[in-house]
This record gives sequence, C-alpha cells and structure tokens, in this order.
Amino acid sequence: MDGFRFSTDVSVRFAETDAQGIAHNASYLVWFEVARVDYLARFDGGYPGIREQGLEAFTIETHCRYLAPARFADRLRIHTRIASQKGARFRFEYVFERIGDGAIVADGWSGHACVDAATLRPTRMPPWLAEAIATAEA
Amino acid sequence: MDGFRFSTDVSVRFAETDAQGIAHNASYLVWFEVARVDYLARFDGGYPGIREQGLEAFTIETHCRYLAPARFADRLRIHTRIASQKGARFRFEYVFERIGDGAIVADGWSGHACVDAATLRPTRMPPWLAEAIATAEA
Amino acid sequence: MDGFRFSTDVSVRFAETDAQGIAHNASYLVWFEVARVDYLARFDGGYPGIREQGLEAFTIETHCRYLAPARFADRLRIHTRIASQKGARFRFEYVFERIGDGAIVADGWSGHACVDAATLRPTRMPPWLAEAIATAEA
Amino acid sequence: MDGFRFSTDVSVRFAETDAQGIAHNASYLVWFEVARVDYLARFDGGYPGIREQGLEAFTIETHCRYLAPARFADRLRIHTRIASQKGARFRFEYVFERIGDGAIVADGWSGHACVDAATLRPTRMPPWLAEAIATAEA
Repeated sequence: MDGFRFSTDVSVRFAETDAQGIAHNASYLVWFEVARVDYLARFDGGYPGIREQGLEAFTIETHCRYLAPARFADRLRIHTRIASQKGARFRFEYVFERIGDGAIVADGWSGHACVDAATLRPTRMPPWLAEAIATAEA
Repeated sequence: MDGFRFSTDVSVRFAETDAQGIAHNASYLVWFEVARVDYLARFDGGYPGIREQGLEAFTIETHCRYLAPARFADRLRIHTRIASQKGARFRFEYVFERIGDGAIVADGWSGHACVDAATLRPTRMPPWLAEAIATAEA
Repeated sequence: MDGFRFSTDVSVRFAETDAQGIAHNASYLVWFEVARVDYLARFDGGYPGIREQGLEAFTIETHCRYLAPARFADRLRIHTRIASQKGARFRFEYVFERIGDGAIVADGWSGHACVDAATLRPTRMPPWLAEAIATAEA
Repeated sequence: MDGFRFSTDVSVRFAETDAQGIAHNASYLVWFEVARVDYLARFDGGYPGIREQGLEAFTIETHCRYLAPARFADRLRIHTRIASQKGARFRFEYVFERIGDGAIVADGWSGHACVDAATLRPTRMPPWLAEAIATAEA
C-alpha cells in the first residue's frame, strides 16, 4: 500500500459478524487497536512497555469508513501508519485490504493522547518512542 | 439537550470496560446502534420492521469523539437525532451525557444507506419512514 | 419463574447477533454479568460498592446451555439467584425467558470468588452482604 | 499438551480486557470459536465450507473454568480436540496455556449440533468430515 510501511493481518472471527452476515462496524475499532499494538510492538517494549513506564495512551477520536462488507473468515491486511505526532498527541491511519481480491473494505484513523497514568494529565510522548516512530515512518 | 428531541439510556456494562478502567472506545459504536434502534422503534415496526420489509440499513461511516472517560456502572443518556436524510442516505448524530454530573462524555455521528436486502443495491428510504422522521424532528 | 425472586431484562442488541442470525453464544456470559450486577445493586452500593471496599469478585467458572435461538430485538427476562454462598465462594444461577412467547432460551450458572483487590487472595464475602443475600433469597 | 494434537494461538487484545485488568470471562468463548474454526480449517473447506454445503453447527452448551488471570498481550496457546462425535452432536475440548510461563489459564468444552441450514433440523455430520476428524484424532 503506497505510503504505508507496516501492516498486520486479522481474520474476521465469527463472533465479529452480525445478523447482516458481515463484520459488525464496531469490530473495526477493535482491529484499529490490534493494528496499533502490533505497530508499536516493534519499538522497545511496545504498548505494554509504555504502560509499564507509567504512561497511558487514551483514544480521543475515531473515524471509520466502511467501503465494502467483510465476511466471516475474510483475511484482512491492515496497513497502518502514524500520520502525525506532536507533543502528547498522535494520529494513526489505517487502510483495510482484503487478502485475495485486494478490495479496500475500510479505512479510518484514530487520534490519541499520551497521559501520565497516575495523574491522567497529558504528557509528551517519550522522546525515544517519538524518534523511533519518526525513523520508522521516514 | 438543545436540538435533540429523543434520548435513550444505557449503563456501562463491566464487559464494556477495559484495562484502563474505562469504557472501551468500540463500545460507543455499539451504543450508537442501541440508540438508533430505540430511535426507530417509535416508528411502525422500527428497525426489525424495516428488515422484514426486505430492506437493510448499512453503516457506511462512523465518527466518535471521546471527551471524558466513562466508567463501569455509569449511566449515560444518549441524545439522538437524524440530522439529514436524502434518497438512500441518512445520518444520525449522538451526544452522550452522563446522568448525575451531566458531563458530556462523547459525541459522534454515523452515516447509513438503505439497501435492498436481496440485491444489496441502494434504495430510497420508505416514504412513510422518511415522513415520520421528518415530522418527529420538525 | 419458580424458585427465583429476582429478574432483569435485556434486549438482544444487533451487535450481539452473529452471521447465523442469532445471539452469539458469548453474549450470554455478558448478560450473566448484567444480571449479577443488577442483582447486587439492591444491596448497599452493589458491585461498584464492593469494589470500592477493596474487594473484587472473580469469575472462576461459567456454564451455559443454549436451548432456543434468540434473535435481534428479542426481549429476554433473566431470572437470577444466588444458589450457594460459603466463605469466599458463591454461585449465581440464571434462566433466560423470552418475553412474549415465554420460551426458555438458555440457562446457566457462574461460580465466583471474593478476593482482596490488593493481594488477590481469597477473602470471605462481607458478612453484611452474605446476610442481605440470605434474607433476599429466603 | 498430552492428548491434544492441535493448537492455535491468540494474543489477548486490549478490547478483551476489563476493568479488573484481566481478560474478560466472555472472551474465552470467542477464543473457543477461533480455536474451533482453526481446527476445522484443516479439513476440506473448514467451517466456511460446511456452511456453503447448507449446514450450520449450533453451539448448544459451553463450559469454562478460569484458572489464572490472563492479561493484555499475553499469548495463549489453545490446545483443542474433538472429544466425542456421534450423529449430529460433537464436543470440543480446550486447554489454554500461556506461552512463556506455561501456566494453564483456563480450560473448557463446548457442545454442538449440526443442523440443516434451511430447516434448522438436526442432521448427521457429513461422513467425510466425521472420518477426517476421526483420523486426525486417532
């Protein structure tokens, strides 16, 4: 996917479908998160490591466009990048491509803020992580 | 809530929280849907009735802003309206108010399209429903 | 329901259905929990109150029989009782009755243990709660 | 795992945790299903193939014991087998082992019935599948 250097794959679980016979719209936000966690896992400690350092990353905004139905057992490749990062804020972008026919089934983004886990006050992303991300996305 | 004539209440279920101790971001899309179903239930047959008439309403876009954390057992009032409706397309808007302190914990919207359940082709919202909604929102 | 003095109602959410067109089997465990929380809410502070006292109740076993399919928008009455309580352990029992046709769609039980939230060691259920439950079930 | 010839791995998703900081009890039933689907995928067409042949497999009973908490990002190996199969009925058994410390975090089983998707009447498991399973488990 042009402009994306990272992807992670999921299969649509039966529990993630609904009575329309397709993946439920809320499932995509769960997959956003799976993709974020995989994205960050390449960096020292990943998201669990961030939490162990006394930080939390809150989700402050999500947006998803559902472009084609995904069905049970469809394999989806989630192309993922951090599109912007400044201070405490960062934004992930996602494109969902169905493996097999290459259909783009969804895209979206999510906005996040780093907070101190104790005070819940916004705090800068750790410099080591910001730098590692900048390098990875360069 | 100014500009809203309808609301529905949910309580944050324990299963809807996550290890941050707050309602998970995907839970809000499930609540969007609960609110839509309740909204439409006032009209002849509601959403189950629409489905029995051979129509489906697909969700084609969602957007949510998370403004304050909601916690287990918080009671949330979801103010809901149809903000626009034209042809096959309609858009719901939502504001989540915590009962008790009145905090606005989230807001968002979702875009939908009526489709023929057999062909999955877009089809106009049934006139009786479009009219009933227009009257309710007037 | 004979032998039950408490019930709580849920409606099957669309997100809780799956591509078989019925409520997904895992949804029932979420409803077990909704029923437990409602059951305990009658007692001083309920489950949130128990947590504020530094206790947690862990789920240690669940069992569910799916006797008839439940569908989107079905309203289910969950008859709930505490069937046994001794020391740190207690067991809830549930019967799911569909409102309307009275069909028993599921039944089941769940086993729990009170633990000290700080040490995670088993601890007796608070006497005031054990007594309140015994009175309620008498 | 003694007595098991098949396993599938899952990682605990953040969305699958709850405010106790552990994987929610209902998540295990979703993982049961993931394991079943993976188990059957080795056989011609797997579960999607069964559905395309006009059959459904209903879940009629589930049982789970939660032996140790699983946390966000824990990797779990689900050892899975079909323990019995006769006529329309079959039973899966599962043991959840945490990768790393080898702790058994849960075990359980689920009972199922093959039904004709059109009539919803019980129907024998297709002989080719019953034989393939018998061979795999022998």
